[in-house]
Amino acid sequence: MFSELLQPDLRLMLMENDDYGLKEFCVALYPAVAAEVLHGLEPADVWRVLKSCELERQAEIFEFIDPPQQLELVDNIEREHLSKLIEVMSADDRVDLLGRMDEDHVERLLPLIAKAEREEIRKMLSYRENSAGSIMTTEYASLPEEITVREALDRLRQQAPDSETIYYIYITDAGRTLHGVITLRQLILSKPGLQLADLMRRGVVAVKVDDDAEEVARQLALFDLIAIPVVDEENRLVGIITHDDILDFVQEEANEDAYRQSAIEPLEAGYLDTPVVTMAKKRGVWLLLLAAVGFITAKVNEGFEGVSSRHDWLSWFLPLVLASGGNTGSQSATLVIRAITVDPSSKKQKARIAGHELLTGLMLASAMAAFSFLAVNLLFGRNMQEAMVVAGTIGLVVTMGTLLGSALPLIFDRMGMDPALMSNPLISSLSDIFGVVIYYSTAILLLEMLLK
Amino acid sequence: MFSELLQPDLRLMLMENDDYGLKEFCVALYPAVAAEVLHGLEPADVWRVLKSCELERQAEIFEFIDPPQQLELVDNIEREHLSKLIEVMSADDRVDLLGRMDEDHVERLLPLIAKAEREEIRKMLSYRENSAGSIMTTEYASLPEEITVREALDRLRQQAPDSETIYYIYITDAGRTLHGVITLRQLILSKPGLQLADLMRRGVVAVKVDDDAEEVARQLALFDLIAIPVVDEENRLVGIITHDDILDFVQEEANEDAYRQSAIEPLEAGYLDTPVVTMAKKRGVWLLLLAAVGFITAKVNEGFEGVSSRHDWLSWFLPLVLASGGNTGSQSATLVIRAITVDPSSKKQKARIAGHELLTGLMLASAMAAFSFLAVNLLFGRNMQEAMVVAGTIGLVVTMGTLLGSALPLIFDRMGMDPALMSNPLISSLSDIFGVVIYYSTAILLLEMLLK
Repeated sequence: MFSELLQPDLRLMLMENDDYGLKEFCVALYPAVAAEVLHGLEPADVWRVLKSCELERQAEIFEFIDPPQQLELVDNIEREHLSKLIEVMSADDRVDLLGRMDEDHVERLLPLIAKAEREEIRKMLSYRENSAGSIMTTEYASLPEEITVREALDRLRQQAPDSETIYYIYITDAGRTLHGVITLRQLILSKPGLQLADLMRRGVVAVKVDDDAEEVARQLALFDLIAIPVVDEENRLVGIITHDDILDFVQEEANEDAYRQSAIEPLEAGYLDTPVVTMAKKRGVWLLLLAAVGFITAKVNEGFEGVSSRHDWLSWFLPLVLASGGNTGSQSATLVIRAITVDPSSKKQKARIAGHELLTGLMLASAMAAFSFLAVNLLFGRNMQEAMVVAGTIGLVVTMGTLLGSALPLIFDRMGMDPALMSNPLISSLSDIFGVVIYYSTAILLLEMLLK
Repeated sequence: MFSELLQPDLRLMLMENDDYGLKEFCVALYPAVAAEVLHGLEPADVWRVLKSCELERQAEIFEFIDPPQQLELVDNIEREHLSKLIEVMSADDRVDLLGRMDEDHVERLLPLIAKAEREEIRKMLSYRENSAGSIMTTEYASLPEEITVREALDRLRQQAPDSETIYYIYITDAGRTLHGVITLRQLILSKPGLQLADLMRRGVVAVKVDDDAEEVARQLALFDLIAIPVVDEENRLVGIITHDDILDFVQEEANEDAYRQSAIEPLEAGYLDTPVVTMAKKRGVWLLLLAAVGFITAKVNEGFEGVSSRHDWLSWFLPLVLASGGNTGSQSATLVIRAITVDPSSKKQKARIAGHELLTGLMLASAMAAFSFLAVNLLFGRNMQEAMVVAGTIGLVVTMGTLLGSALPLIFDRMGMDPALMSNPLISSLSDIFGVVIYYSTAILLLEMLLK
């Protein structure tokens, strides 16, 4: 990428103490690009670059630096400078930063921050993680309804420098109760003498301060909004959440969901930026748990010692039989987890989901059983009865997989836990236990009991 | 949800032929909400509701109806009305619709559409699927650089009704070459007499018409933009892509990725809206392919008949051994696929990725081998040598899994195929084949060759 090309230049400027060049660097580039170029530099060097320009610009660039590097930076700067930087950072980004920082560090830092900002920070830090309150910013544009379009534009000019967006202007009264919304587009298109009360849209789409970020994303996406207002229990406007923060959130969630689905604890940093030891821990904890479930399967297997040694060809198909159940189970789990994540109202339709899965499962079971019957009989030369054992088991195991895969996430969700913890490997491992029982029981029934 | 409460009212209005009520329904609700309430209604009823209000409003609501229902609707309306509706729809939504429609139907429809619109539609339909061109809209606001802020605001008032957003105004010359960008915020804050040339930001962040939508999402998210301009090879402005379309795209992609990861062909509609037969097909095609790979594993297993019947306890641990390789492989594949999706520049760092995976794999292998050794020896009472077979195999299989899981997506990507086709179940199935070979070879080596 473009930014990779710039880093050598920047390093040269640092080596040559080219202060003018450093300042130019901060001012001429988009903050997002400047932050990218700073990625991977030593904290001391990053601060030298940042300090070459004025505080507001420092904050703009700092906000685009990724969280792990931000944390490294705050640990390597005098508290006085950091507190000034935090004062000028935007309300949502600084709370994000403080929320990730060591608590002791925050406590030592807060006294240095101006009182008004400090109180706001304390309030925002108190919101539950992943709630609307925790991701909102308090820098919105608001106006009273009794003024005219002309006055509104004048007042906006004063509010603009401190507002995250002025494209949506919220109409509130003296008690901050939210009455309506008006867009800058409307203001521009309207006659200067009109009153805002006659222009504004009432019945504003808003979220509650305690709503989940997922719900915020859903509302913002549904209505194609640039920002969505956040209100408290008394419908008082407390903040806004803008489109860019929701886009970041949705992208982060997509990553986390993908990791969860494969039994990896979500990473805080990018793939190559995560140290190998951290990576091994985030994967190992699940692998060991899955292995523990695997040993239960082995115990169950041991219990069927008799039948498996009397028909030792049975073990050839064991991986296939178990994989079929696991694969179907993973499919079902993924579909159900996505369904209830994308549209939480579908949680209420448990019976319909179960019915849907059972029917799909029966169709898949028939196809898989027919295919396996032919393969076992024709490719492996096992007789009809033996082929029937494998095919019958696969049919049962596929049906069992759909039910297990759809039920477990719903049960987890019902118990108030994240349904996504039911990762594909976990569903597969659990389905293995049942798979072994079904396989060998079917074998005993068809090969030994019915033979007699 | 709120919209579920409204549908009974709407049905009553339809039954009672309450035309005034229907019109009120279209006008009073947000288009997004109205579209939700119409979900699941018969096409004839939906059209009765829509036709009760004026064409522009019909188009606004229609644009929020989900694609499968849109297709049902276009098949159940006279072509004359549909062509009028398409004329007033926004440029990106209508191309989206026409792109999904039956080609014959589109060909019969196009002659009824006004010439200017028709030519634009043909042009937009020609862009490659999932390219910037295919998701952009042509309704942007643009101004020449030589006018003043005052004139700019006047001209914007004329352009506003036809522009998707007027918050970013692109500065172009007579040949439509993109020279800069200015925000409505800047215009509001600037002195009316200033020239746009002195205000505009040059070096606009833009995407090429042929760029992938993923790249567009990355740029828009990186710079926190409301819209991003799309230019052709000669840097002429041809369209814009707005934040809401990108948010929809990212959410859709997250769903598709989750399905792919679990070996399900992406669904076009919601979970409960997808018919069972469609669902069975989208899952069955992969399950059968995976079963075919499973039969290869069974063949390999058959080849080791000798050793597995001489030590029949070996088969107890077979599911565990194979699952360990599969689980590690799935983790690696997910991590690598996410890494190269989120940051395509990491593709160039194949050696670093391989090294990272190998190191992580070795750590995981040691932990898993130690754990298994103890479990096999203590819980199953197998002797040291036997425990070593299981533990050693698990160590090897886990290492193999990380390499296989990281290499296959990179190879797929290199061959120009979607790396996400390397789903977790496929990685697991392929790793099973190697797993069986490693397990029985280790057993022969440790239990039979070294024993002699």
